[in-house]
Amino acid sequence: MPFVIVEMWQGRTVEQKRNLVKAITQAMVDHAGCKPDHLHVVIHDTPKDSWGRDGVLGIDMKEN
Amino acid sequence: MPFVIVEMWQGRTVEQKRNLVKAITQAMVDHAGCKPDHLHVVIHDTPKDSWGRDGVLGIDMKEN
Amino acid sequence: MPFVIVEMWQGRTVEQKRNLVKAITQAMVDHAGCKPDHLHVVIHDTPKDSWGRDGVLGIDMKEN
Amino acid sequence: MPFVIVEMWQGRTVEQKRNLVKAITQAMVDHAGCKPDHLHVVIHDTPKDSWGRDGVLGIDMKEN
Amino acid sequence: MPFVIVEMWQGRTVEQKRNLVKAITQAMVDHAGCKPDHLHVVIHDTPKDSWGRDGVLGIDMKEN
Amino acid sequence: MPFVIVEMWQGRTVEQKRNLVKAITQAMVDHAGCKPDHLHVVIHDTPKDSWGRDGVLGIDMKEN
Repeated sequence: MPFVIVEMWQGRTVEQKRNLVKAITQAMVDHAGCKPDHLHVVIHDTPKDSWGRDGVLGIDMKEN
Repeated sequence: MPFVIVEMWQGRTVEQKRNLVKAITQAMVDHAGCKPDHLHVVIHDTPKDSWGRDGVLGIDMKEN
Repeated sequence: MPFVIVEMWQGRTVEQKRNLVKAITQAMVDHAGCKPDHLHVVIHDTPKDSWGRDGVLGIDMKEN
Repeated sequence: MPFVIVEMWQGRTVEQKRNLVKAITQAMVDHAGCKPDHLHVVIHDTPKDSWGRDGVLGIDMKEN
Repeated sequence: MPFVIVEMWQGRTVEQKRNLVKAITQAMVDHAGCKPDHLHVVIHDTPKDSWGRDGVLGIDMKEN
Repeated sequence: MPFVIVEMWQGRTVEQKRNLVKAITQAMVDHAGCKPDHLHVVIHDTPKDSWGRDGVLGIDMKEN
């Protein structure tokens, strides 16, 4: 009876999200003994100007 | 002195959000003994292609 | 098909939580048109030494 | 460069969490193109008296 | 090895976010002993019609 | 009118949290133009067996 929140940079396709939701749900079923019926996965698509790591905003990173 | 985060599918009107914020705040006052002055309610409107249940993306659900 | 996260200071009784979960669920049904079946409400009980407002930790507040 | 928050009922063993973190990380690499190095997975273990579904607290559920 | 989520009203410039991410990261290094390399800061820009305080939606507030 | 959630490994002293809350609040005032009165900072202390990075649980890391 859990839910999962994924915070990641925006830009994934619907097909990627479709597969990601399926795979995370399966991971919860396989390893945490969850029933999938009430299991939610929500994806927060964050713009690169709203995320930083190591004190540097995403739009300013070299690995951009 | 709490805050409340609501994750739901986008599409509610401003009037619905207005009433929802009022009702959740009242629930916190009535049942958790909160003072409303510092009580925040934030609503995350999630697109249907960024939410899944039972391993299925919102846009692929029949109840869509 | 939403979920709600409540962040508040620890110390509420089970009966208070029971009523709070019921009332927030009802607010979501009444004002956001949600079906309650898949609607989760989770409460994070935060200790007063892990929450601050106005730059002051909960255990240091006068309203404590 | 994302992170993942898992909210679930407490009671999983360390071994279950170990496998869950590994599997969710793999799902993010496989389907969202993430590099795992900066990918965090955090698990919130929620007591059954702090979670409700369908307006009913976890400790009051029949499927308990 | 932490992450920080900032929920605030939308409308900050990229330069403000740049400085905010830098300052919060520094605070975590100075006061919580974190290494910045794996430290994420994510900003959720919330519209004023999706946030309430004291039971009042942001767009209805006088301090708007 | 924002709030900030800090997810980090447990083990910080109250004095560290006190200074962290003060510094993050100041960062929000200085760089995001927030008024501190309604600004909350909440710290989630996560056990090392409930956090992973790079697919590895905290208790299994060498940098432990």
